[in-house]
Amino acid sequence: MTETATIDQHPAWKALLDHAEAMRDVHLKDLFHESDQRYPDFSRRAAGLMLDLSKQRWRRETLDKLLALARVAGVPKGIERLLAGERVNLSEDRPALHTALRLPADAHLNVEGEDVVPGVHRTLKRMAAMVDKFHAGQWRGATGKAVTDVVNLGVGGSDLGPLMVTHALADYRPRDIHPVEVHFASTMDGSQLADYLTRFNPETTLFVLSSKSFTTIDTLSNARTAQDWLMGHLVNGRGDRDLVMRQHFIGVSASPEKMSEWGISDANQLEFWEWVGGRYSLWGAIGLPIAVAVGMDNFRELLAGAHEMDRHFANAALEDNLPVLLALAGIWNVNFLDIRAHSILPYEGRLEFFASYLEQLEMESNGKSTTNSGQTTPYSTCPVLWGQLGPNAQHAFYQLLHQGTQPVECDFIAPMRRYDRIEDDATRALLKEQHRLTLANCFAQSRVLMLGDEAIEDDGPRPNHKHYRGNQPSTTLLLDRLTPSTLGSLVALYEHKVFVQATIWDINPFDQWGVELGKKIATQTERVLASHEGVEALDESSRHLIEAVWRAEEQR
Amino acid sequence: MTETATIDQHPAWKALLDHAEAMRDVHLKDLFHESDQRYPDFSRRAAGLMLDLSKQRWRRETLDKLLALARVAGVPKGIERLLAGERVNLSEDRPALHTALRLPADAHLNVEGEDVVPGVHRTLKRMAAMVDKFHAGQWRGATGKAVTDVVNLGVGGSDLGPLMVTHALADYRPRDIHPVEVHFASTMDGSQLADYLTRFNPETTLFVLSSKSFTTIDTLSNARTAQDWLMGHLVNGRGDRDLVMRQHFIGVSASPEKMSEWGISDANQLEFWEWVGGRYSLWGAIGLPIAVAVGMDNFRELLAGAHEMDRHFANAALEDNLPVLLALAGIWNVNFLDIRAHSILPYEGRLEFFASYLEQLEMESNGKSTTNSGQTTPYSTCPVLWGQLGPNAQHAFYQLLHQGTQPVECDFIAPMRRYDRIEDDATRALLKEQHRLTLANCFAQSRVLMLGDEAIEDDGPRPNHKHYRGNQPSTTLLLDRLTPSTLGSLVALYEHKVFVQATIWDINPFDQWGVELGKKIATQTERVLASHEGVEALDESSRHLIEAVWRAEEQR
Repeated sequence: MTETATIDQHPAWKALLDHAEAMRDVHLKDLFHESDQRYPDFSRRAAGLMLDLSKQRWRRETLDKLLALARVAGVPKGIERLLAGERVNLSEDRPALHTALRLPADAHLNVEGEDVVPGVHRTLKRMAAMVDKFHAGQWRGATGKAVTDVVNLGVGGSDLGPLMVTHALADYRPRDIHPVEVHFASTMDGSQLADYLTRFNPETTLFVLSSKSFTTIDTLSNARTAQDWLMGHLVNGRGDRDLVMRQHFIGVSASPEKMSEWGISDANQLEFWEWVGGRYSLWGAIGLPIAVAVGMDNFRELLAGAHEMDRHFANAALEDNLPVLLALAGIWNVNFLDIRAHSILPYEGRLEFFASYLEQLEMESNGKSTTNSGQTTPYSTCPVLWGQLGPNAQHAFYQLLHQGTQPVECDFIAPMRRYDRIEDDATRALLKEQHRLTLANCFAQSRVLMLGDEAIEDDGPRPNHKHYRGNQPSTTLLLDRLTPSTLGSLVALYEHKVFVQATIWDINPFDQWGVELGKKIATQTERVLASHEGVEALDESSRHLIEAVWRAEEQR
Repeated sequence: MTETATIDQHPAWKALLDHAEAMRDVHLKDLFHESDQRYPDFSRRAAGLMLDLSKQRWRRETLDKLLALARVAGVPKGIERLLAGERVNLSEDRPALHTALRLPADAHLNVEGEDVVPGVHRTLKRMAAMVDKFHAGQWRGATGKAVTDVVNLGVGGSDLGPLMVTHALADYRPRDIHPVEVHFASTMDGSQLADYLTRFNPETTLFVLSSKSFTTIDTLSNARTAQDWLMGHLVNGRGDRDLVMRQHFIGVSASPEKMSEWGISDANQLEFWEWVGGRYSLWGAIGLPIAVAVGMDNFRELLAGAHEMDRHFANAALEDNLPVLLALAGIWNVNFLDIRAHSILPYEGRLEFFASYLEQLEMESNGKSTTNSGQTTPYSTCPVLWGQLGPNAQHAFYQLLHQGTQPVECDFIAPMRRYDRIEDDATRALLKEQHRLTLANCFAQSRVLMLGDEAIEDDGPRPNHKHYRGNQPSTTLLLDRLTPSTLGSLVALYEHKVFVQATIWDINPFDQWGVELGKKIATQTERVLASHEGVEALDESSRHLIEAVWRAEEQR
């Protein structure tokens, strides 16, 4: 490749285009008819996960060509560079070291002359001390009562990760501790927070302010409203402002200065590093709400599971490497079959927020169109990703998957075992039946999406509106059980998948320049809205929208 | 048109194809430069809503051509037929009468010889009696204690509507009543339910079983587990099974026989009609959880708001008709600009579930590829629809909207006024600031999506990764405030939009044949999983997945 050639100019890419042409009219069901080796060919196990890619619309030959593409795109070298802490985040000139957050205490990782592991474990120890204090009922509010409600104020990476994991591990809440409930308020308009303020007791409520830069206006405006509420209730005689700040606020940020300026006391500051991206940050201090909810032991299990996937990613051959294989299926679908949408469908109620989490992870990481050398990508990058709990989506949008006009790639995710810990015998038996029913639905849906009408014996001619075309490709991911450890592996799997795709697309998955301009323009717009000045400089639509708001404000 | 010509063969469609060709290289910002009439041309008000379509990638001429298409596709006649109760649901040969559920008591609607209005209002009265009983603390469990927790067991149409509205109207919970909390458990695997069973008191918990057919296995398996839990706790000495059934279960269904079979007592059965589609059913008995949460007066306001939109839909000229205009913008994007994804972005935290609700409404209604006369549509129908609270999505997937490679249509939704009812002065002022900030973000984002780099004065050359191409089309919908009434209008607006699109695509938005085969295959698969028999008849992938589960089950 010459300096300026993009990856689609490479013979490996062109070979795939030709191959895709030949595959265009091949139906998934035909692929199953022509080989009985698809399962061994396309399924792999690692770190408590079983990945079945046999229902992708590809042949062994396809995968070989994709592996060749991965090699010429430098995936093996990329993996090495990522894990070694090299500056893979080119536009911001720094490493992306979320994998360092889950290294064991006895590991070493020298990054530009410094071993980062001791710092990581110092933070984990400080988190553990805080968690112990909550669980012992020793973290007390300004009036001396033990804290019962911890509210995480954060958005994006400082919200979705902790929110998703806290729900996923709901069954792992420790017993026999002082009970502390964890809540999340993220949205800028204060809706969630306003609701909490009407229900919670200020004496026993603590806020965790999570923001990498500590300048995120969404979080800081929620924090200001929360602070005002605490002061209004607690400062009148029964305490003083410093005490409230010390007992009711924890800060998590990469900027200790900004935390101090805001008034977070030194003892309550948890720091992380510029080399951890927001959407990759649940593994460290940003994960504090997780640790409060499920305890530090389970939090460490989560890290261990992710680390197991990291080692697999580092060591497994490309053709056995789960993140690489998952990434290649996506590349095949987006770039060669023109499938522009991807649905995430967990058959496990505790994974309620997993699709939202992945929406951020994938679309913010790879929703890019500039290569690392500054060219505009002439090929598609990240597809639109969305999802919902699978059984619920069956009653919502599966109609479109089965009979709509849009091709969609689907990821089915389910635990093989569940409900082993339910104490009551009768309830356990019924819930286990519900779990089996759920698995049956999971397998049935991917089967119908693949085979269409052929999934059922022909019961005579069917009208066109009862016809199922099939041929929608899907991946099935089975977890042994949903535990802190397998959840860690699962999330790390997708993180690395995103990295592999970015490497092939030659884009930077660790920056997010696309969100900067909106922030600037929002600040200007807020000034216009508040001051009633400067509206004439805006476009006609914005001007009329703002004037409509002003008119509405006058009607009180 | 001949009998078999699909709409894309019509000159009105072809004229749009030609026009789209001419519009292909026109950037949205150029459209604003070439006219200062875009706001009057493309914005309309009705029923407490303000619709701004000026940021769609179209000209006045485009809209004229689309209106011509709507006319030749029979939209005016279609609206009449829908509202008159004709059998617009062709494949199931019945009317679709959700609009009848919101007719006022003094209206009349003769459907095939019978006035349906009195029946609708009889049901509303029965709902009101139940709600009064809850709110008076007079609905008592088997041990004589007043019910405090009502859990809705339902999925799809029996879940998303009540869930979405209950959250949207959280500020409208009545005071000075016996407090009753409303909860939702939908997912087949029992996750949500299992969580409730560990936390709620069986003596004061009532379940609403919602299922149009009363055969939905998701709901019935949750119901069975719930019933078992109640019986296990309440039948031992302190009561009898009949009493528990009578005091702890309400049924909502179109099948009274099936409700009786299951054991729902006659007095606790709320019936609705075959002519109400599941995803259009929140306006009647399925809305019971809404009425319990916000009171019957607010529920009637919701109906009144929807009815106001119905009247607008019936009476406004096509070019002033909000649902028609919204539908045409979508048709233009999907069919002529090849924009296959649509994002729903409410700037209002209470609309947390609005995108999920619309995912069902739009994709289950219009994710079809067979025309009413049985041909395969040669054109695209429903796009992939997904969304998230706008301010949160800014920190999640807006990166892809601004700098990705996928074109996406966006709907921005926001209330112009908020927080007027907060009692504490200081808190109210802060929350109002948060609301203003949120509006500023809403307007700023649609502006940047439209203008790209031009949204900001040129501050010198920028590298490609800081470039914003703009040109993403969007709609802005402003509500005066989010009230029961404007929420009703908003939902009805989208319902009718879906109907207009279906009419143009010549598909049936009221059936859902695409979900039938999956149910059948799931039942078969469940049998195989449970009995360990018949696996050899399945495809290789399904076989191995099932065998993996069996192996996992042995490891205990």
